[in-house]
Amino acid sequence: MIMPMKMLEENLNKKVALLLKDNRILEGTLSGYDEYMNMVLDEVEENTENLNRKLGTVIIRGSNVVRISPR
Amino acid sequence: MIMPMKMLEENLNKKVALLLKDNRILEGTLSGYDEYMNMVLDEVEENTENLNRKLGTVIIRGSNVVRISPR
Amino acid sequence: MIMPMKMLEENLNKKVALLLKDNRILEGTLSGYDEYMNMVLDEVEENTENLNRKLGTVIIRGSNVVRISPR
Amino acid sequence: MIMPMKMLEENLNKKVALLLKDNRILEGTLSGYDEYMNMVLDEVEENTENLNRKLGTVIIRGSNVVRISPR
Amino acid sequence: MIMPMKMLEENLNKKVALLLKDNRILEGTLSGYDEYMNMVLDEVEENTENLNRKLGTVIIRGSNVVRISPR
Amino acid sequence: MIMPMKMLEENLNKKVALLLKDNRILEGTLSGYDEYMNMVLDEVEENTENLNRKLGTVIIRGSNVVRISPR
Amino acid sequence: MIMPMKMLEENLNKKVALLLKDNRILEGTLSGYDEYMNMVLDEVEENTENLNRKLGTVIIRGSNVVRISPR
Repeated sequence: MIMPMKMLEENLNKKVALLLKDNRILEGTLSGYDEYMNMVLDEVEENTENLNRKLGTVIIRGSNVVRISPR
Repeated sequence: MIMPMKMLEENLNKKVALLLKDNRILEGTLSGYDEYMNMVLDEVEENTENLNRKLGTVIIRGSNVVRISPR
Repeated sequence: MIMPMKMLEENLNKKVALLLKDNRILEGTLSGYDEYMNMVLDEVEENTENLNRKLGTVIIRGSNVVRISPR
Repeated sequence: MIMPMKMLEENLNKKVALLLKDNRILEGTLSGYDEYMNMVLDEVEENTENLNRKLGTVIIRGSNVVRISPR
Repeated sequence: MIMPMKMLEENLNKKVALLLKDNRILEGTLSGYDEYMNMVLDEVEENTENLNRKLGTVIIRGSNVVRISPR
Repeated sequence: MIMPMKMLEENLNKKVALLLKDNRILEGTLSGYDEYMNMVLDEVEENTENLNRKLGTVIIRGSNVVRISPR
Repeated sequence: MIMPMKMLEENLNKKVALLLKDNRILEGTLSGYDEYMNMVLDEVEENTENLNRKLGTVIIRGSNVVRISPR
């Protein structure tokens, strides 16, 4: 058994992909998170249906996140 | 009487299918969960209306889950 | 006066139909629930506008439920 | 001044109509409720835009309710 | 400075118009409310885009309310 | 550093514009608020895509507010 | 490891871009925030799909925020 929060911890400083509720996908290095699954990502690349762009560092509010996949 | 959380526990390390609010279906092995029904799934296969893909390990936020069915 | 939770208790091991927010209807035997109205259903038959299928056992998150009707 | 919960109490065992967020209207006898405005209705008749049907007893989750009107 | 709850109190037994999230407008006499802004309205007239009707007394769940305007 | 609540306090009795989730814009004098950002506005002018009207005093539920801009 | 709230603190008095749930983008100087991620922004420029305008100072409710990117 691995707790979801423990899984986040194991991915610290590793590359993850976040799917958000609006279908936006953010890929970057997970450099922090809190108990609400708010997250800090570095070197982010964002993909929407029409767009691909680089965003540097971003803070994501956890309430918008659907799934997190380690890369 | 079986509590929903107990039912999750009984499916640890077994294959489950999750239906999410956006109609996405994730099938994989349930390797963890917490009291908010956040879950960790391994060897995930994801199906949307148009797409089928393999995702490896994913963390799912419980607030997006509609139903969980043991396979 | 009958409390909604008491009404659930009286339907344990009986057949119920759940209407979910996405208009999905699940019929099955209520084998468990908790204080958030998360439920465990057995021998589930699911009906959407286009589809009818058998699902076996499912866990439903209460936040998706609109109404519960004993059969 | 009449508190909303007191108003519910006064309608116990009386006929009420519930408007739900999905525009569904349920009419029936209010046989119970709790502090979340979850309700138990008996002899329910349900009306949607396209459909009218009899449902017997139902449990309604309060979070789906828009307004309650005594009949 | 006037607190929103104090403003509600000052409108007790007076005519108010409620705008709900689904664009429904309810006009009536405010005969009660609680700390969640659940309200009891008397002699209600309801207006939607297509419809005008009289509803008598209604209980409104506060979570559906956008704005309240004294008449 | 200025806290959002402190910023509200500084705008008491001044003109503000509220953008609501349904794209409605309300302009008026901020005469009160509480810790949920419920607000009381006086001499309100409301603008939607199709409509402009005067509303006098209104109570706004904070959960519908997107942004507040001092005028 | 950097906590999301710590990341906000580091961006105090710096330029940030907020993406809101309605796809609105607000760029400005972060002059304050609280534990709900409500924020105060100065010298704001707002961009929607069709519109670009200057807003001066604004208060943003955190529940509408998807991501925050330092500029």
